Amino acid sequence: MRSTTGWRADAAGTLRRAALSRRELRADDVAVRVDYCGVCHSDLHALRSDASGPGRALVPGHEFTGVVTAVGPEVTAFAPGDPVAVGNIVDSCGECAMCRAGQENFCRSFPTLTYGGADRVDGTTTLGGWSREYVVRDRFAYRLPDGLDPAAAAPLLCAGVTVWEPLAALGVGPGSRVAVVGLGGLGHLAVKLAVALGARVAVVSRSADKARDARSLGADTLIVSTDPEDMAAHRDGFDTVVDTVSAPHDLAPYLSLVAMDGTLVELGHLGPVTVDMMDLLIGRKKIASAGSGGRPATAAMLDFCAEHGITADIELLPSAEVNTALERLGRNDVRYRFVLDLADLDA
Amino acid sequence: MRSTTGWRADAAGTLRRAALSRRELRADDVAVRVDYCGVCHSDLHALRSDASGPGRALVPGHEFTGVVTAVGPEVTAFAPGDPVAVGNIVDSCGECAMCRAGQENFCRSFPTLTYGGADRVDGTTTLGGWSREYVVRDRFAYRLPDGLDPAAAAPLLCAGVTVWEPLAALGVGPGSRVAVVGLGGLGHLAVKLAVALGARVAVVSRSADKARDARSLGADTLIVSTDPEDMAAHRDGFDTVVDTVSAPHDLAPYLSLVAMDGTLVELGHLGPVTVDMMDLLIGRKKIASAGSGGRPATAAMLDFCAEHGITADIELLPSAEVNTALERLGRNDVRYRFVLDLADLDA
Repeated sequence: MRSTTGWRADAAGTLRRAALSRRELRADDVAVRVDYCGVCHSDLHALRSDASGPGRALVPGHEFTGVVTAVGPEVTAFAPGDPVAVGNIVDSCGECAMCRAGQENFCRSFPTLTYGGADRVDGTTTLGGWSREYVVRDRFAYRLPDGLDPAAAAPLLCAGVTVWEPLAALGVGPGSRVAVVGLGGLGHLAVKLAVALGARVAVVSRSADKARDARSLGADTLIVSTDPEDMAAHRDGFDTVVDTVSAPHDLAPYLSLVAMDGTLVELGHLGPVTVDMMDLLIGRKKIASAGSGGRPATAAMLDFCAEHGITADIELLPSAEVNTALERLGRNDVRYRFVLDLADLDA
Repeated sequence: MRSTTGWRADAAGTLRRAALSRRELRADDVAVRVDYCGVCHSDLHALRSDASGPGRALVPGHEFTGVVTAVGPEVTAFAPGDPVAVGNIVDSCGECAMCRAGQENFCRSFPTLTYGGADRVDGTTTLGGWSREYVVRDRFAYRLPDGLDPAAAAPLLCAGVTVWEPLAALGVGPGSRVAVVGLGGLGHLAVKLAVALGARVAVVSRSADKARDARSLGADTLIVSTDPEDMAAHRDGFDTVVDTVSAPHDLAPYLSLVAMDGTLVELGHLGPVTVDMMDLLIGRKKIASAGSGGRPATAAMLDFCAEHGITADIELLPSAEVNTALERLGRNDVRYRFVLDLADLDA
């Protein structure tokens, strides 16, 4: 086994520095020195789950960038020294219809998650990117394009592709009208990507405070969701409404913003939600959901971001401050994504 | 006022023959001798509502065909003797964004319904098509194309356009895979229209009894919804699933039939429905709803039906048997739509 160091949750969900093992390289494996890894809302969610559940002894982290340090004998796409990025999926069956369609995120036998998943070869539980080394099957590593800051690019691998997939699938482009609900890790990337795709973009937020931020990201409008007149003024105004709010909430106000034949996309993992079909009927609106992305979409998203100079707006912290990052993320006190610098694990 | 005869609900919801008044023709009005009018599930619903509510003293009926008997002085599109058809909308504001887009069914100040609505000029309650005469604004009468049997064409004006609009909006055509859930008034027309549009069509039904009926309508497959293996075999198999079931039910089994990036369309006026967003996420599926249609879609649907020889499969009854029709419809004992022949009102 290979030895490394990382941040592992104790029974209370507090991250503690720990010695970790990584598997010896298989023929198609790549060893990555993890330099930067994002802190995602789903990390917080996993850590706060029942201690007897998946949160126990987790090593979170599923959006990271780093440098290849070694490759297995059958790896041809990467060599030591290559800058790479890894997202929230590290394997899939490769044979089902979804995998064959390049939608490994929808693999019918469930994709192997970057942490808390079961390795498809030896059944061990995967340990995530809040560690100095990760060993990953080559197919699920992506070359980090030149010109992207590796720290600010890390969140593209989860937050970025999660907003990219629905924007691409719905054909957002020049002339599209897009509203983004919530200006957090997902939301701010949704604004940047939709603007770069050529759409006119509005931000929907609970307070008017975000107007300047929205404009600096490229949006031309801020809609204050707590202001009924403002919401009414934008009724039926957007072909695509991207809702990034992860707390339970009523979808009806956001459906009211959707234009005839348009779509409300839910990204917040809301679980069961009650929707009045009449709110869909009037205007023939649709509700969709999305999450993560397949390999082709991930690669396309990275190329698009490199071409348009898009990365996340991040707050970079030494990895030793991971518990502070989680506590602040729980209060939404971040603009817009924490990224951990894992170099401190060498000390 | 003009005098006619029709079928009016008493306080218990039973239809009684009654003398009715129709307005004198306005400049843009058309008087129609109603020959045939369909019996729709929503008629039953309206009659069964609280007696203090909209069911009281209703004259139902909102899908009818007949012949023009007189026209107002500004009417140029119709002349006495013309065969016409009228659906469930008889007026709208004509000025809102939806009306300007030809979606009078979504009129922002609500369309005037063919019965139980409030006339936009004098405020009187509209009385429906289960009567020998109807007076309608010319814009909301449609020329009945040559070659369509006027009795079997009547249900096209509500059931037909209700299934036509989503099929057209979703771009169903050659190569599309469509599943229709429920083989009733809406469902059998959805099958016929989707087949004529060039789609491969399956019917989803609770029992295998419908296999022959499904095939005779042009479907190539019957999926038995109570058979888990049959449902699993068709998982992710359809670009569009049209759910016509109006009783409350779980949408998850029908969502499982929707293919990647496909849509489940709800036509059953289900009201609030709980949907697990995870069922939408895996495969990036969408839920939509639809109901009724605008003037351009109604005219296009009638032309399409004339071109392809499509009408409803009906059971024609003298209008005096309306209570029997309603009772049997309540048991789904009809194949597939009752139409009332109103000529008996002349006696």
